[in-house]
Amino acid sequence: MVTLSSPVAPPRIALHPDRLLPADPATRSVARDLYAAVRDLPVISPHGHVPARWLAEDLPFPDPTALLVTPDHYLTRLLHARGVPLTDLGVGVEDPTPERSRAAFRLVCEHWAALRGTPVKLWLEQVLAEVLGVDLVPSAATADDVYDAVAERVAEPGFRPRALYDRFRLDVLATTDDPCDDLRHHAALRDDPTWHGRVVPTFRPDRYLEAGHPAWAAHLDALAEVTGTDTDTFAGWVRAMADRRAYFAAHGAVSSDHSHRDVVMAPLDPAEGERLYAAALAGRATPAEATTLRRGLLFEQARMASEDGLVMTLHPGVSRDHHAPSRDRLGPDIGADIPVAVELTEALRPVLHAFGTHPRFRLVVFTIDETVFSRELAPLAGFYPSLYVGAPWWFLDAPDAMDRFRSAVTETAGFAKTSGFVDDTRAYLSIPTRHDVSRRADAAYLARLVTQHRLTLEEAHETAVELVTSIPRKAFRL
Amino acid sequence: MVTLSSPVAPPRIALHPDRLLPADPATRSVARDLYAAVRDLPVISPHGHVPARWLAEDLPFPDPTALLVTPDHYLTRLLHARGVPLTDLGVGVEDPTPERSRAAFRLVCEHWAALRGTPVKLWLEQVLAEVLGVDLVPSAATADDVYDAVAERVAEPGFRPRALYDRFRLDVLATTDDPCDDLRHHAALRDDPTWHGRVVPTFRPDRYLEAGHPAWAAHLDALAEVTGTDTDTFAGWVRAMADRRAYFAAHGAVSSDHSHRDVVMAPLDPAEGERLYAAALAGRATPAEATTLRRGLLFEQARMASEDGLVMTLHPGVSRDHHAPSRDRLGPDIGADIPVAVELTEALRPVLHAFGTHPRFRLVVFTIDETVFSRELAPLAGFYPSLYVGAPWWFLDAPDAMDRFRSAVTETAGFAKTSGFVDDTRAYLSIPTRHDVSRRADAAYLARLVTQHRLTLEEAHETAVELVTSIPRKAFRL
Amino acid sequence: MVTLSSPVAPPRIALHPDRLLPADPATRSVARDLYAAVRDLPVISPHGHVPARWLAEDLPFPDPTALLVTPDHYLTRLLHARGVPLTDLGVGVEDPTPERSRAAFRLVCEHWAALRGTPVKLWLEQVLAEVLGVDLVPSAATADDVYDAVAERVAEPGFRPRALYDRFRLDVLATTDDPCDDLRHHAALRDDPTWHGRVVPTFRPDRYLEAGHPAWAAHLDALAEVTGTDTDTFAGWVRAMADRRAYFAAHGAVSSDHSHRDVVMAPLDPAEGERLYAAALAGRATPAEATTLRRGLLFEQARMASEDGLVMTLHPGVSRDHHAPSRDRLGPDIGADIPVAVELTEALRPVLHAFGTHPRFRLVVFTIDETVFSRELAPLAGFYPSLYVGAPWWFLDAPDAMDRFRSAVTETAGFAKTSGFVDDTRAYLSIPTRHDVSRRADAAYLARLVTQHRLTLEEAHETAVELVTSIPRKAFRL
Repeated sequence: MVTLSSPVAPPRIALHPDRLLPADPATRSVARDLYAAVRDLPVISPHGHVPARWLAEDLPFPDPTALLVTPDHYLTRLLHARGVPLTDLGVGVEDPTPERSRAAFRLVCEHWAALRGTPVKLWLEQVLAEVLGVDLVPSAATADDVYDAVAERVAEPGFRPRALYDRFRLDVLATTDDPCDDLRHHAALRDDPTWHGRVVPTFRPDRYLEAGHPAWAAHLDALAEVTGTDTDTFAGWVRAMADRRAYFAAHGAVSSDHSHRDVVMAPLDPAEGERLYAAALAGRATPAEATTLRRGLLFEQARMASEDGLVMTLHPGVSRDHHAPSRDRLGPDIGADIPVAVELTEALRPVLHAFGTHPRFRLVVFTIDETVFSRELAPLAGFYPSLYVGAPWWFLDAPDAMDRFRSAVTETAGFAKTSGFVDDTRAYLSIPTRHDVSRRADAAYLARLVTQHRLTLEEAHETAVELVTSIPRKAFRL
Repeated sequence: MVTLSSPVAPPRIALHPDRLLPADPATRSVARDLYAAVRDLPVISPHGHVPARWLAEDLPFPDPTALLVTPDHYLTRLLHARGVPLTDLGVGVEDPTPERSRAAFRLVCEHWAALRGTPVKLWLEQVLAEVLGVDLVPSAATADDVYDAVAERVAEPGFRPRALYDRFRLDVLATTDDPCDDLRHHAALRDDPTWHGRVVPTFRPDRYLEAGHPAWAAHLDALAEVTGTDTDTFAGWVRAMADRRAYFAAHGAVSSDHSHRDVVMAPLDPAEGERLYAAALAGRATPAEATTLRRGLLFEQARMASEDGLVMTLHPGVSRDHHAPSRDRLGPDIGADIPVAVELTEALRPVLHAFGTHPRFRLVVFTIDETVFSRELAPLAGFYPSLYVGAPWWFLDAPDAMDRFRSAVTETAGFAKTSGFVDDTRAYLSIPTRHDVSRRADAAYLARLVTQHRLTLEEAHETAVELVTSIPRKAFRL
Repeated sequence: MVTLSSPVAPPRIALHPDRLLPADPATRSVARDLYAAVRDLPVISPHGHVPARWLAEDLPFPDPTALLVTPDHYLTRLLHARGVPLTDLGVGVEDPTPERSRAAFRLVCEHWAALRGTPVKLWLEQVLAEVLGVDLVPSAATADDVYDAVAERVAEPGFRPRALYDRFRLDVLATTDDPCDDLRHHAALRDDPTWHGRVVPTFRPDRYLEAGHPAWAAHLDALAEVTGTDTDTFAGWVRAMADRRAYFAAHGAVSSDHSHRDVVMAPLDPAEGERLYAAALAGRATPAEATTLRRGLLFEQARMASEDGLVMTLHPGVSRDHHAPSRDRLGPDIGADIPVAVELTEALRPVLHAFGTHPRFRLVVFTIDETVFSRELAPLAGFYPSLYVGAPWWFLDAPDAMDRFRSAVTETAGFAKTSGFVDDTRAYLSIPTRHDVSRRADAAYLARLVTQHRLTLEEAHETAVELVTSIPRKAFRL
């Protein structure tokens, strides 16, 4: 309970225990029952963006704005869409003054209504009321009180990263890391006798594959230095990559992640591969050649995955930094990434031809293009043992989209060929909340199947539990 | 109440007060409450096709067929699909005899069952029973009675356009007009002391941009004549357009409307623009060049919009006059326009690069391709302050499609970045009915969010009211 | 009731009478009522893959695995996706031993949970419990008992094809046949005085149109031999095809079926047609030329359809035999066909230009690409009298997908321009079950329209009955 400086009693955040469950009383009753069975189970977070350093150093979180606002591009984009300049929210601002941080937080509170109907409202309300115990509804009137209450709370020892790891019942937390990263924080955690959690790195080599990018050659130099391997040739690149994949695996990694425009992976004839590689390195490759090369390099990642067993996850179909002026001024990852259509059936044919039934190969495909769920992805996962349907990703990690996802996928691929929920977030405090939304949404979907007599209650119970335990463990080889 | 010539009591149209609201009792109760709050609010109609002349001259409507059947291609297409020749419904027929009009109306009544499940049935039932007070269910048996009752009703003074404007609680009604139109009827209304409504023109310059069309040069001549500006050059075209946009703005216009195959707007280097323009004018442009030129001209419209503040609305992705033999015989706009897929993310990148954060620029994008709602349009509107998601348009202006629209858009873009409902109709009598369907659909959607505890009842109430007041006012700068 | 060898009472399949009906009590009550009106009506099966020979010879079915498992690629693909080798399920295995058949059946029982949420579970449960009277829930523990019980049952005379034809209340059953087929089994049935059913062939000439396929010339030779017509020219091909279409029509065929990658039909200038035909026959056609030729040949099928009145059905948009290694080892049709996106609006323009309003022409378009339902297919069917929307096909023949189909199609095209359900199956025992799922899904959809006061109960009743009687009869000219 927060003490208020204002004399009038302001509204409080009321988290209804049945939130997100279906309205029909019979279905809600079943959903409540299913949800109760999974609500308190540990959280498996096999893909996300929390820095390992937070856990390794266990330092207190910074001020409320730096914790909850500036790095959360789900939130900043919605306010930007309402006309709030991103810099007013701290984006691209180095070392903002306390006054600016407070002013940024106030802007969020003033625009609270802009979040209606979005999952951002669900997440923030639950983070404030449940995680932080600050239950004032944010508004112009309450902004300072909310800010002060949050600031006070995160200064307490119980709100440090490790304490929250336990409180959130995190079972495993995956980070996302550059292949050249030395993973020192992961090593520190491994070697820390006082630490009993599990934080695993994820191998994310995108920039080393984008041969058309001006910085590609510089990345290859860094890779050469870290591995002591000559990366001036395609074959050398493969050796260096295999080296780093092994390094990551030795540090606990279970998956690699890949986010390119498309998902084509097509093997290159060695001579042709070397020719394109050399041309790209010399800056002489056409855009089409650079794309062909990237697809050949990605095929090599798949091939290595079939050998080292790292699960390969794909997050394609995003036009990054869509608004160039904002990127030039404020940098990347500011909420201006916009999805595009993707094609899977033909794009994945060569790699599935090569490794689709390979027992070591595992591929999890995420998409923001909902049209491929029933048309391509569920049919593929319903045939290939190696292929899994990634959970609703990014803009789709919201209750209605989750329901559409299950409806589109289940009838063709069932439940066991889906990945389990992936929070994909850098908003550490929201991790349990995001998984909670997913658990509620799945309970709602399963409850409908029960009331429609498509599943027995026992089958639904078993499935609900599997969706947060054995299914993500199997998909991510955890 | 209509007196019948037939001795047996025929069925009556029963408009249930809860129609379109969800079945679940708790949700319906909330929806009823939300709907009651907006049911009687004034109607804002910022995009449509009613002629200003009707209001300016306030003449009685013609016979029932000319009023309700022939011009309504939603209706005529459905009967055509069942095998009724369009000419039998008056399409393409000049001055039909009273007998033919009555026969056409009878055909509609005989095929009444063909409308089941479509919004056309909802609209016509409400127009007949509520607007016209004719509550007989149309059928072969009742056709003549319905025809006569409607004819009698529309001859009454209370059914003239201005009386209905008041009765419909129209707040503002936008027409759609050619840039060369002198807007005399808009001027007449403005200067009429007995008129207190608001009818605004909309600038619709499509034909002046389609440089590949055989009539393009003739349109440019007309534009030159009206503006006294030489339109033989790209630069002259821009000056003439700016002149007409200013003329429209001076007559109350708040928006321009654009319906081309795609939404690409790409600036042309001035020299290249002039070269393409000259080639097109000389009939020497290739189809690809004509498209490039059209995209350059559309970019100029966007640039002018960022200066004069006219809201730019886009209605892309329609293959017009799909059945050429029917068009050749009966003319355009006969219900044979068929949608195609659209792409927004890459297409809009240049114009959003240029004006996406410009405070004067406002872009409202409508689509019949539902796949872009969650994939492209909501993500774009959830970042760019200038961009709004157009309401479900055309084939999607129906209850289920409206629900899918809110479900696809809201979680990513919220409510405030949508446009508010747009009836887009030439069926004047159906305007309140169409808005009523939208209000009911939104109440149903919001009620679900309330019963799922995603919004409080107060938040939903406020949102329901905003959706028909401040939201369309803001999107269309009214 | 099956007697068990195991001492513990195992769970029984409980087919709830309300399965698949909506949860809301008021809506369920209406749905129950609508479903009751159609539940026992005869089954019209105008498109499927049951061999006519089964009915002609009326032989007993083989062992349970050969009956229920091996030929059902809906089932085998799901188990393959879970890691079960297809050969372990009998796929590609000639004359499996009784032990292998029993082991394959056991694998299905052991993986029963993999079917959760899919229609395969619904179908098999109903086939087992209702058709075969075997109500044990399949599992590792019950596998042998289920196998033995099924084997015993299908040995009984009441489970022969003709007895089941009567028990299933089949009204008409269409097979799918090669144009060179002599249709001897259809003729035998026609001439059999003890047979009172109706089994009609369907003309499926795909392989004679795929001019880029290595076996094309050989197929043309066979066609020449059967028809006594020279097929070395385009004109000869057309004559031979017309001959076989007439032969099929004389044997009761009402439709032809066509499944190519796309649905483009574009007429060829005769000289160009002959040139391409000759080039393809000589193996000199480029892939693009072969495609152009195929589209020209398909246009000829449409033209012939406008003359002989065979309904033309299209099943496009599938990447056949996606996993080449499996096809090479086990053959085609093993569950590895994966859908791709389709385009209809532009693709169908030429054929609809030519025959769209022709009274003899009828076109039914099926798709697995849901995006075209509201965007292209319903708008087309809502204008062209010749064009019908095919029922949800293949991966979409499941309850949720059926509901999305009605929601996407009805508001734009109504009910009467849809085809009625098509089971498209070779799983003879599942035919009534599949139609039952469709009837339940339609009852659920219609019940929602009733409780939302969009249809009266009487209108919904009439529509429910039409959907399984007059609507398929009209679409397929039965």
